[in-house]
Amino acid sequence: MRLTRRYPFSASHRLHSPALSDEQNREIFGKCNHPFGHGHDYVLEVSVQGQVDAHGRVAPIEALDRLVNGEIVSRYHQRNLNLDIEELAGVVPTTEVLAAKIRERLAASWPAEFPKLDRIRIFETERNIFEIA
Amino acid sequence: MRLTRRYPFSASHRLHSPALSDEQNREIFGKCNHPFGHGHDYVLEVSVQGQVDAHGRVAPIEALDRLVNGEIVSRYHQRNLNLDIEELAGVVPTTEVLAAKIRERLAASWPAEFPKLDRIRIFETERNIFEIA
Amino acid sequence: MRLTRRYPFSASHRLHSPALSDEQNREIFGKCNHPFGHGHDYVLEVSVQGQVDAHGRVAPIEALDRLVNGEIVSRYHQRNLNLDIEELAGVVPTTEVLAAKIRERLAASWPAEFPKLDRIRIFETERNIFEIA
Amino acid sequence: MRLTRRYPFSASHRLHSPALSDEQNREIFGKCNHPFGHGHDYVLEVSVQGQVDAHGRVAPIEALDRLVNGEIVSRYHQRNLNLDIEELAGVVPTTEVLAAKIRERLAASWPAEFPKLDRIRIFETERNIFEIA
Amino acid sequence: MRLTRRYPFSASHRLHSPALSDEQNREIFGKCNHPFGHGHDYVLEVSVQGQVDAHGRVAPIEALDRLVNGEIVSRYHQRNLNLDIEELAGVVPTTEVLAAKIRERLAASWPAEFPKLDRIRIFETERNIFEIA
Amino acid sequence: MRLTRRYPFSASHRLHSPALSDEQNREIFGKCNHPFGHGHDYVLEVSVQGQVDAHGRVAPIEALDRLVNGEIVSRYHQRNLNLDIEELAGVVPTTEVLAAKIRERLAASWPAEFPKLDRIRIFETERNIFEIA
Repeated sequence: MRLTRRYPFSASHRLHSPALSDEQNREIFGKCNHPFGHGHDYVLEVSVQGQVDAHGRVAPIEALDRLVNGEIVSRYHQRNLNLDIEELAGVVPTTEVLAAKIRERLAASWPAEFPKLDRIRIFETERNIFEIA
Repeated sequence: MRLTRRYPFSASHRLHSPALSDEQNREIFGKCNHPFGHGHDYVLEVSVQGQVDAHGRVAPIEALDRLVNGEIVSRYHQRNLNLDIEELAGVVPTTEVLAAKIRERLAASWPAEFPKLDRIRIFETERNIFEIA
Repeated sequence: MRLTRRYPFSASHRLHSPALSDEQNREIFGKCNHPFGHGHDYVLEVSVQGQVDAHGRVAPIEALDRLVNGEIVSRYHQRNLNLDIEELAGVVPTTEVLAAKIRERLAASWPAEFPKLDRIRIFETERNIFEIA
Repeated sequence: MRLTRRYPFSASHRLHSPALSDEQNREIFGKCNHPFGHGHDYVLEVSVQGQVDAHGRVAPIEALDRLVNGEIVSRYHQRNLNLDIEELAGVVPTTEVLAAKIRERLAASWPAEFPKLDRIRIFETERNIFEIA
Repeated sequence: MRLTRRYPFSASHRLHSPALSDEQNREIFGKCNHPFGHGHDYVLEVSVQGQVDAHGRVAPIEALDRLVNGEIVSRYHQRNLNLDIEELAGVVPTTEVLAAKIRERLAASWPAEFPKLDRIRIFETERNIFEIA
Repeated sequence: MRLTRRYPFSASHRLHSPALSDEQNREIFGKCNHPFGHGHDYVLEVSVQGQVDAHGRVAPIEALDRLVNGEIVSRYHQRNLNLDIEELAGVVPTTEVLAAKIRERLAASWPAEFPKLDRIRIFETERNIFEIA
């Protein structure tokens, strides 16, 4: 049984790599490289997979929400991903990187009694979706 | 080729296990344990998988709809899952259990000439999604 | 300037009038009269109208959310509208009645410094929408 | 006949008034005052109203799109509303102010042969909607 | 109290006026003038307005659905608007014209005991919306 | 890392096989066999899978969009699938066939430096979804 929970958050970012020239940045990241950044209403999906227990539940939903809200949503919501988030310092905050970092951070504090962390998916917009197993 | 059809239905449920004390029920099921129940606009997704035939179709859509509507939607829509549905009698009608029972019931009357029943997915709400392969 | 805020809540109801015979109830309310009730994921929209102030705001959004959550959402969410809600006791909890009662209850505790309460709208489902000015 | 066209754009903003102390800014704008800003996927709705012409059209849709894209969408999309947009310089870029400024700017270049500009509506998120007639 | 019901239907159309030259047709209707037509998943919204009756209802929903399905949805769904629909013969089936014709047809068979027909709205797509009071 | 991009287009089609009698066509394709066709607002999803590069990107998004728009969207949008599209000539344009042909056409011009083409999914409507790996 796989359970997927969706968590929206709003944040801003600018795609810019200090390892590249300004011209290369514009070429690779296009409009996303504009100097003052822009923003999105992201939706984070967290999927877990496991057996259904005697009470008919695959996961302790309230504990899962506390973990995701505490580690990610409350720290990212209405923030600037380039400047406000410790684990994104010095990296280009593409949604690919975001997905990998969120997966890493959740895995690091994942309780042993939780079902398996199966998949992270982020909707940057409704038409641009990133997923890491 | 995989085809997914979506079927909405509205129903009420109460999460409560007779095997547990009232306090345990409240602790495990939280607000979902309120005595008089609450409801959702569920969406059931049924996915089938198979070869495309000579007429360009992977499944007989009208026959599939008749099966799902007859076995599930017409019996669940605008009903109370705890009290109205034979196959849910005596179980806690979490959406995990619902997904497993729906899969079981569809499989039991699945015609041999249909493509393979691949996956059942239920959106309890837009943010709480359960899936069984 | 008109501001609209959307507040989702899940609840169950049964459409049944004690003033009518069982047969009349079935005739008027159809499937919605099933004895054990069913449920919906309602969305409540509250619209206010007023002047934009010196800080660029038409309404104190956090105070508005506290009022709507306190008076309505926290009391209705995951409840049975027939049995759990004081102001709906003894009435048929159609969404028309719900809209009128919610408007009444919000108006009764509406702070003088808030902009005008303009419109209540309830999406019973995405395809069935009720509105009261 | 009223025609409404929807135009999405992504932008970042920070709600902060130089006329207020830091403490007052935090009190009035809450999380929206975080120093580095955050972002949204806004949807701008432009509604026009008029008579249907001999060809069955109420508005020249391609010309309307060119106007809205030229004046607003191409200038706001993937930008920072505080720092990149001339007409928002020095104001607090709440969505109320945004709606009023967009209406003003469209009205200033509105061709005489267009139907009447009827209403501007902005979805800051799906649950927070601002409208100016 | 205003009630809005939504009715989806899929149809094809071609925007072409026999009163215009081919070049004028292309200029006015653009891509919508392609010779073999194209299609949409339209959503028709019908809004009625009236008093809530003693049973808590503003409209007889099942009778309203029968009327709209009988007069419009069952006749338009999976049809070609230029060639299959009697009341659209010889006109350019823009969504403006569609809205006016649907309003006219519903009004012509509107039962006296129904609440007032208040508004017809058609979503040609999610971003292109037509409304007639 | 898997990236999914969504591309909407509107088109019309008629399900009819010249290899079948009229009666067989009506039996197999039902309403979709109406002589003058009907239409949909399709959404095409293209998913790619690969490694995240040094700039934090899994795919060159602008080049991917150019490919999909050039090969598919600009050729299908506001067209008749039976009559306007070379690669669909003589086949029944079910969405199953559409998915297979789109996959084939994209694969044929897929640049070697792109990440792997992972999955094509088409939403014929929101409730009828076809997918090919």
